[in-house]
Amino acid sequence: MNFKDIIIKKREKEELSQEELAFFVEGFAKGEIPDYQASAWAMAVLLNGMSARETTDLTLAIAKTGDTLDLSDVVDIAIDKHSSGGVGDKTTLVVLPLVAACGLPVGKMSGRGLGFSGGTLDKMEAIPGFNVNLSTAEFKKQLKEHGMVLAGQSANLAPADGKLYALRDVTGTVPSIPLIASSIMSKKIAAGAQAIVLDVKLGLGAFMHNVEEARELAERMVAIGELAGRKTIALLSDMNQPLGNAVGNTLEVLEAIEALHGRGPADFMEHCLHVSAQMLLLGKKAEDEATARKMAEEVLADGRAFIKFRELVIAQGGDVSYVDDASKFSKAKLIETVNAPVSGNLAQIHARVVGETAVELGAGRAQKEDAVDHAVGIIIHHKVGDSVKKGEPLFTIHANDSALLAQAKEAILKAHTFSDKAVAPLPLFYD
Amino acid sequence: MNFKDIIIKKREKEELSQEELAFFVEGFAKGEIPDYQASAWAMAVLLNGMSARETTDLTLAIAKTGDTLDLSDVVDIAIDKHSSGGVGDKTTLVVLPLVAACGLPVGKMSGRGLGFSGGTLDKMEAIPGFNVNLSTAEFKKQLKEHGMVLAGQSANLAPADGKLYALRDVTGTVPSIPLIASSIMSKKIAAGAQAIVLDVKLGLGAFMHNVEEARELAERMVAIGELAGRKTIALLSDMNQPLGNAVGNTLEVLEAIEALHGRGPADFMEHCLHVSAQMLLLGKKAEDEATARKMAEEVLADGRAFIKFRELVIAQGGDVSYVDDASKFSKAKLIETVNAPVSGNLAQIHARVVGETAVELGAGRAQKEDAVDHAVGIIIHHKVGDSVKKGEPLFTIHANDSALLAQAKEAILKAHTFSDKAVAPLPLFYD
Repeated sequence: MNFKDIIIKKREKEELSQEELAFFVEGFAKGEIPDYQASAWAMAVLLNGMSARETTDLTLAIAKTGDTLDLSDVVDIAIDKHSSGGVGDKTTLVVLPLVAACGLPVGKMSGRGLGFSGGTLDKMEAIPGFNVNLSTAEFKKQLKEHGMVLAGQSANLAPADGKLYALRDVTGTVPSIPLIASSIMSKKIAAGAQAIVLDVKLGLGAFMHNVEEARELAERMVAIGELAGRKTIALLSDMNQPLGNAVGNTLEVLEAIEALHGRGPADFMEHCLHVSAQMLLLGKKAEDEATARKMAEEVLADGRAFIKFRELVIAQGGDVSYVDDASKFSKAKLIETVNAPVSGNLAQIHARVVGETAVELGAGRAQKEDAVDHAVGIIIHHKVGDSVKKGEPLFTIHANDSALLAQAKEAILKAHTFSDKAVAPLPLFYD
Repeated sequence: MNFKDIIIKKREKEELSQEELAFFVEGFAKGEIPDYQASAWAMAVLLNGMSARETTDLTLAIAKTGDTLDLSDVVDIAIDKHSSGGVGDKTTLVVLPLVAACGLPVGKMSGRGLGFSGGTLDKMEAIPGFNVNLSTAEFKKQLKEHGMVLAGQSANLAPADGKLYALRDVTGTVPSIPLIASSIMSKKIAAGAQAIVLDVKLGLGAFMHNVEEARELAERMVAIGELAGRKTIALLSDMNQPLGNAVGNTLEVLEAIEALHGRGPADFMEHCLHVSAQMLLLGKKAEDEATARKMAEEVLADGRAFIKFRELVIAQGGDVSYVDDASKFSKAKLIETVNAPVSGNLAQIHARVVGETAVELGAGRAQKEDAVDHAVGIIIHHKVGDSVKKGEPLFTIHANDSALLAQAKEAILKAHTFSDKAVAPLPLFYD
């Protein structure tokens, strides 16, 4: 087999066989297929597409290039939840303990933030001592003992994916739905969960900009999951405006803790309950959605979800006194609230601008190596559809640098668009 | 400027600016743009195309990466002729002295054979002592003194083209008409001729398989030439069967010498006279095609073209006694003629199979480094449309190895297809 012939086949819109895709992935992972061939192939895939069968074969080949976890020796069924990335998305911090409190084990490997999108690991590390670097043995032990675990990806999880993504990132070959789907699913499959709930974000602050693209990605990922023998469902959720009110690591942890006490922003609460119910349903903890929803509401209302969150923090070495007393978290030096300059109805709060501004304040990374400032971020006080009066608080910036504060105030103000006419709130879910 | 953004623009089917194409070519030539980005860009160009304006800007940028000759200080106008490559195409050996004999200077840089297609330099080197490695100064001096020169490309002629072609060759990105056109024309423009006649071959033994593709390539190249300020025309000629009867270096030189004496195969004679007339017309040596044709016929008939060929051989250090006495050329050890196995009308003589068989006999190169055996090759005795009787000579193999001889006999026999019905001869030109 010759990789040039495989490139030509894809260039000519032919379907690649399982053997051809495995030949590529193995050769590329070993460095036998050079980057300049892999990038030409990726461009041909981006422009000519891949079938569901090809995408699944590619995904499974990538998953096999590193360690693959089998969680069935520690729990009957473990569930995983994946968000395609957004702004203010601290859902995992709430749904992981919530679902675990209902008796469904959650084994989650998560990523760090890169670009405008935040990362769950960075958020949890805002709690002093919280350790996300677990060995496979530690991951399994904690899943067995506590029914929940939240760790960084092991270095050897689908290594071909990391290598291919790095190449795609510099060759203009990222926005290919089959390649995005296989990148996400290869890691999920290697991580061993038997059931997967995918939260595909769409809108201004997501990688998918419209419902059609998001649905295509979702369908592609569900097909891969099913063909790989994992129970998989996908939700399409809005990411035109930030989820909840807080953007920034500590600020989001505080909002998640509030949500676990039943006091989170309405949109975020609803989002967490819906995702949790879908997880419980897929994990067979409930017969129907109404029952699943009721279970989720109960463990939230009676405090079991919050207790489970404390258990997670303790299990992974975090200082639980911070969870119990939010005032212990270090605050940013400069905290300033900006009021609405006019009266009107909020038509847009541009999620991507909010996410990028948070990164500039220091909450995220422009480059992989950058350090994160946990304290900084943005709190928005209104959501799209709200009627706001001139002089009312519109948003608050938490910054550690006055020049960055000034820039952030200007950017976030611009991210808010007002309308004279009534504006309908954004939907939380599209499907 | 960032090359990733340029890749993305082409991926999104946008037109690249002159500055963007120059940025790519200069960066790639200097090694600042890595191969893995260039190959992704090449695939995007292959699949999404380029406008005539983009193709010209790319071509001129490539031409500028190395030496560019200006021949206007030695001759008023120099003409160049380029064939897109075929089997048995020894046209240059005849038209170069023929046109020079009519007083039109010809400055030609030529290539070596690679793959099934022969190379003019290899053919001329069958004449002992003939030197194709001329410096720019030698090239110009000979053009001035003799009105004709035939040399290999200087190493520094459009070096970005060589580098890009090598990358395209291993990444499945060769068959892009804009990239082929810019590759050919960048070298022609750098080589300095003010007028260019392009002979675009099409058919079984050419890189272009049909009239539409060949016309698109021809139009693209003419547009580039005109936009670059060179007088340019293109002919579309047949390459379904070999041109003339001889395929192989010495055999082709001998056929060219016969043609210069007016005794070449009818198709080859007609091809040379037509190409020469077009060159004379473009070089303003004649007012109309009929006059140009008559001039070409005259210098052929009165021996001036042959005398000019002798002058070329002498000027470049070749042993002219070989030109005067064909029996001096070394012959292959094994020469065997195969007779027609049946009676019938010749429907096909597969040019590509004939070319590949010649390479296997040793007449060409599978790899760039391979040495060439000048003596070996194939003579076909009939052309498509001929009525052949069983037992008549069909073809003759010249070989230096008995196993290769046996293989060649079998392959060339299969390359001939017979029909019971009358078959029309193939056209020489399509346009």
